[in-house]
Amino acid sequence: MQGLGPAGGSGSGSQEGAACQGRSRWRFRSFVFVLQEAMSAFEACPVPVIAAVHGHCVGAGIDMITACDIRLATDSAVFCVKEADLAIVADMGTLQRLPAIVGHGATAELALTARDFSGAEAKELRLVSQSYKSQEALMAAANAMARTIAAKSPLAVCGTKRVLLYQRDHSVADGLDYVATWNSAMLPQSADVQEVFLARAQRRRPIFSRL
Amino acid sequence: MQGLGPAGGSGSGSQEGAACQGRSRWRFRSFVFVLQEAMSAFEACPVPVIAAVHGHCVGAGIDMITACDIRLATDSAVFCVKEADLAIVADMGTLQRLPAIVGHGATAELALTARDFSGAEAKELRLVSQSYKSQEALMAAANAMARTIAAKSPLAVCGTKRVLLYQRDHSVADGLDYVATWNSAMLPQSADVQEVFLARAQRRRPIFSRL
Amino acid sequence: MQGLGPAGGSGSGSQEGAACQGRSRWRFRSFVFVLQEAMSAFEACPVPVIAAVHGHCVGAGIDMITACDIRLATDSAVFCVKEADLAIVADMGTLQRLPAIVGHGATAELALTARDFSGAEAKELRLVSQSYKSQEALMAAANAMARTIAAKSPLAVCGTKRVLLYQRDHSVADGLDYVATWNSAMLPQSADVQEVFLARAQRRRPIFSRL
Amino acid sequence: MQGLGPAGGSGSGSQEGAACQGRSRWRFRSFVFVLQEAMSAFEACPVPVIAAVHGHCVGAGIDMITACDIRLATDSAVFCVKEADLAIVADMGTLQRLPAIVGHGATAELALTARDFSGAEAKELRLVSQSYKSQEALMAAANAMARTIAAKSPLAVCGTKRVLLYQRDHSVADGLDYVATWNSAMLPQSADVQEVFLARAQRRRPIFSRL
Amino acid sequence: MQGLGPAGGSGSGSQEGAACQGRSRWRFRSFVFVLQEAMSAFEACPVPVIAAVHGHCVGAGIDMITACDIRLATDSAVFCVKEADLAIVADMGTLQRLPAIVGHGATAELALTARDFSGAEAKELRLVSQSYKSQEALMAAANAMARTIAAKSPLAVCGTKRVLLYQRDHSVADGLDYVATWNSAMLPQSADVQEVFLARAQRRRPIFSRL
Amino acid sequence: MQGLGPAGGSGSGSQEGAACQGRSRWRFRSFVFVLQEAMSAFEACPVPVIAAVHGHCVGAGIDMITACDIRLATDSAVFCVKEADLAIVADMGTLQRLPAIVGHGATAELALTARDFSGAEAKELRLVSQSYKSQEALMAAANAMARTIAAKSPLAVCGTKRVLLYQRDHSVADGLDYVATWNSAMLPQSADVQEVFLARAQRRRPIFSRL
Repeated sequence: MQGLGPAGGSGSGSQEGAACQGRSRWRFRSFVFVLQEAMSAFEACPVPVIAAVHGHCVGAGIDMITACDIRLATDSAVFCVKEADLAIVADMGTLQRLPAIVGHGATAELALTARDFSGAEAKELRLVSQSYKSQEALMAAANAMARTIAAKSPLAVCGTKRVLLYQRDHSVADGLDYVATWNSAMLPQSADVQEVFLARAQRRRPIFSRL
Repeated sequence: MQGLGPAGGSGSGSQEGAACQGRSRWRFRSFVFVLQEAMSAFEACPVPVIAAVHGHCVGAGIDMITACDIRLATDSAVFCVKEADLAIVADMGTLQRLPAIVGHGATAELALTARDFSGAEAKELRLVSQSYKSQEALMAAANAMARTIAAKSPLAVCGTKRVLLYQRDHSVADGLDYVATWNSAMLPQSADVQEVFLARAQRRRPIFSRL
Repeated sequence: MQGLGPAGGSGSGSQEGAACQGRSRWRFRSFVFVLQEAMSAFEACPVPVIAAVHGHCVGAGIDMITACDIRLATDSAVFCVKEADLAIVADMGTLQRLPAIVGHGATAELALTARDFSGAEAKELRLVSQSYKSQEALMAAANAMARTIAAKSPLAVCGTKRVLLYQRDHSVADGLDYVATWNSAMLPQSADVQEVFLARAQRRRPIFSRL
Repeated sequence: MQGLGPAGGSGSGSQEGAACQGRSRWRFRSFVFVLQEAMSAFEACPVPVIAAVHGHCVGAGIDMITACDIRLATDSAVFCVKEADLAIVADMGTLQRLPAIVGHGATAELALTARDFSGAEAKELRLVSQSYKSQEALMAAANAMARTIAAKSPLAVCGTKRVLLYQRDHSVADGLDYVATWNSAMLPQSADVQEVFLARAQRRRPIFSRL
Repeated sequence: MQGLGPAGGSGSGSQEGAACQGRSRWRFRSFVFVLQEAMSAFEACPVPVIAAVHGHCVGAGIDMITACDIRLATDSAVFCVKEADLAIVADMGTLQRLPAIVGHGATAELALTARDFSGAEAKELRLVSQSYKSQEALMAAANAMARTIAAKSPLAVCGTKRVLLYQRDHSVADGLDYVATWNSAMLPQSADVQEVFLARAQRRRPIFSRL
Repeated sequence: MQGLGPAGGSGSGSQEGAACQGRSRWRFRSFVFVLQEAMSAFEACPVPVIAAVHGHCVGAGIDMITACDIRLATDSAVFCVKEADLAIVADMGTLQRLPAIVGHGATAELALTARDFSGAEAKELRLVSQSYKSQEALMAAANAMARTIAAKSPLAVCGTKRVLLYQRDHSVADGLDYVATWNSAMLPQSADVQEVFLARAQRRRPIFSRL
């Protein structure tokens, strides 16, 4: 008849409502973690992810793109950290990841006013690395960038992503120790480094095996 | 006759001068905390605080505005992290809060040179969110922004402020846990969320009760 | 033909061996995370987990019990942080969790010597909360303790576990903020608190619904 | 008519109940901080505080003594981290400060079982530094210890307390930097150090002025 | 005949190759620390260091300038975080220090694409504080800035550098405590502050003794 | 004539005394770092260091042994955190490292009272791992332990030391990531692991090459 026991009962009827309350909040918290994990999937993905934004990128859209590694947009794209307008504190990553990208001050202004801002302003704020005139130009640039990155050593590219994510949350001293340890695993006798120099000598593009 | 005891004496005359020294440094440190707390009051304030800067914002002025949530200025405002010119290491918040707003590099250059910079440059550096031609335009914009924010759900606005301040000093993983816990307290059955949707259905502006 | 591309090739034969090396280390690292997660499952489990140790608890056994919340043992149980004897740095949690339980010094001595120690010594070191003469006494005590905990409010018990795990990795100031936020979610209008006082008034044991 | 505005109204009647909910949780969180601050007063106090425990020390009693610097008890004193029995996650400091004193494992067992333990066991767990046969012996020892500490240099005693509290929440590297900076303020030309050596030469007890 | 013993032998021939592997990785890691320390020397230097960049600043060049306090460049300077093109995860400081200067997003884009960027863009990204038309203008500006900083109180300038580096890796609360402790050492009775006010009264430039 | 310039003068005579003060405090701080580094050398040493304590271990003695990995003592050894008696806040490592070994509470009591305690009590407090009747027994045990550790794989032993030191200052999550990365460098194809299993098959003691 205990709450945690294998045969735990449902409790008496009269306390049901209130009982659900505490319990529903425990479940609510767990559910937020599920949503957060969906957004964090971009970050957990070993290879870098590029977000190409046109049209509207609002609320969960910002959660999503801030969990990506690189962001591009059209000048006319519309961004908005909308949650305050819905009486909600954004809880799927925007308030956590945006400050590391655009700074604490800019994040506060965008999140507290919930105002729209364009791709051009997003470029100025460095939320996006580049902003383009048209969707075509955007997609062409995003694809070119993806191809550029994909042509590099997977060990270097995925390692750089991981080391940068580590750095975001640690001190410089911690980061220096981490990357030294990382490279002592991944770098010595690396075939990718050898392939780079071989390819240069042979005046061809290097070819790397999959990770 | 002990230093900490209830009847502790004043010490012998000959050691007075030097004795005061160690003690005066203990008191000096305590006094700095008092000054810091005055500046941190803007941060401790539950509702967001907007700084509207015209004329000069020098030394303690920078301590003050970096403890606010949003900063606006006139193009001709003059900013200066002046302390180094007075042979002082700034100790009321500027060196602590400015890097999260404009980055470590910009902070170092401004604090080490102690040079003046305009509202227009402050905008480029993102120390201020927007810079205006005149004091009138500035005050109008600041008031409009204050009214915009004040019209939103106090729970969402004050929660966003608090969660962002938490984030400034923690890892993304910590921040995600914190905001999930926060929202499991503040969000379920929130009257403010309901009011937002009711107001939308009724095509009116939502009305929220005070926090 | 790129390493990261959807049609990425296998690389030229001559570099295979070395290529596998960097890649195998990336995979090795991922595999360690899989093993760690298996051990951390005890920690991730919302309800407390009690480890009752008799016989040998060696290597991965220590990883396992340090991820539990409470540990009990027989006097004659044999514990050993064995990894150094196998030329391995323990990487499934022992070196991470044992210091918070027995201190840095005791952990270092146990891990560097890889010596056996008894349940009685484990009790002295506070690795286990209590040590018993026989397996029967141990199991009886473990079951009684499990029943005692299971009879309490699940919200309080699971919340205490989570808050303690948070504390292990944070400052006291952080922990105080976290638990205040936690309780503002879980505590107000809690049916469990009401049930405690109702049961006391009625001189019966409280009954809680499941989490 | 806005929630945050100076003339903010009380909201429409129909949403009152739910509105209070979010707001009452905000207020609940603020109230927990008030209680925590009362307990943390022992920690904030510049001079060390000794807790002498006889009789019962339950719930808030543990919050209180863990915020002290040194704890003494009678063998027959009864300690209990009682909150789980009241369906509460302890939120006034016990779960935050106890692990640094007795370790994570012992804290978990005591908090999850909410069992009584004696002064003698508290001594074994190192929650108290010493346990005494009688209340008289306890009070005599506590007074003697207080007098011993009060006879030392206030700068050294209060500095040691502060540096140890800093250490509890920081890395060793951070702590080494902090204490070096601390002592560069408090130590050079310290009258207290001179008084120590003068008193030794004069075969008398040193006399220090108040902090 | 043990590995760690004073008379440790060289091991049997057959295991040499593989044995070297683990050991070479230990040595590789130590070697990375040596390289990192060379770059960190700019940071460890008590006085501020200004980097004036013209021509190419690639790979280790970025490691070097991000360890400096202030960066200036010519518009036509070419910057590149080149390591990914060499199949390497940059491990001498770029990935650790660049995010604090330009943000996480900009760092990721630059490091993952390994693209060239000009001094003018470096100015926009705030990697450099100012960008100049010509090398002459750059060197003149860098020298003027160096002279400006060198004319200030060494205690204030070196203290500001150190406090800013502390801040980069700590919370605002930690930073406020640190700077209060710092100034309680360096500020009271400072001859530099007196000299500033004396020089102002005498309408001359202050003169400070060396640190 | 500037303080930082290459030709910086000595300042005017009248300000000499006070000028020296700020500067002497800067130098005092640097000097503390030199002393700290001497103590931290035991920690920086790649191989584990065992402290065998007989006679008196007072003040700097405690700084020294807490920087070692394992501590042994005679029952009659006398330990004392003496600094408070000299009007000094201990600044060479004791206050930083002792809490991780014996807990915050025990450290506070020992440092604030500056009382003597025996090797037997040091054992109870777990400051030392074992306490012996005589100096001969102590030295025999210390030598045997050193030989035991030296007979193990240097990669495992030195790696365990380093990973434990990392853990002391980081969260469990950080530690798990670190050790996974560490082992992906040091473990795959380790000759030491192979030697362990080969030696077992051949019923001999394993022989490892030097690190």
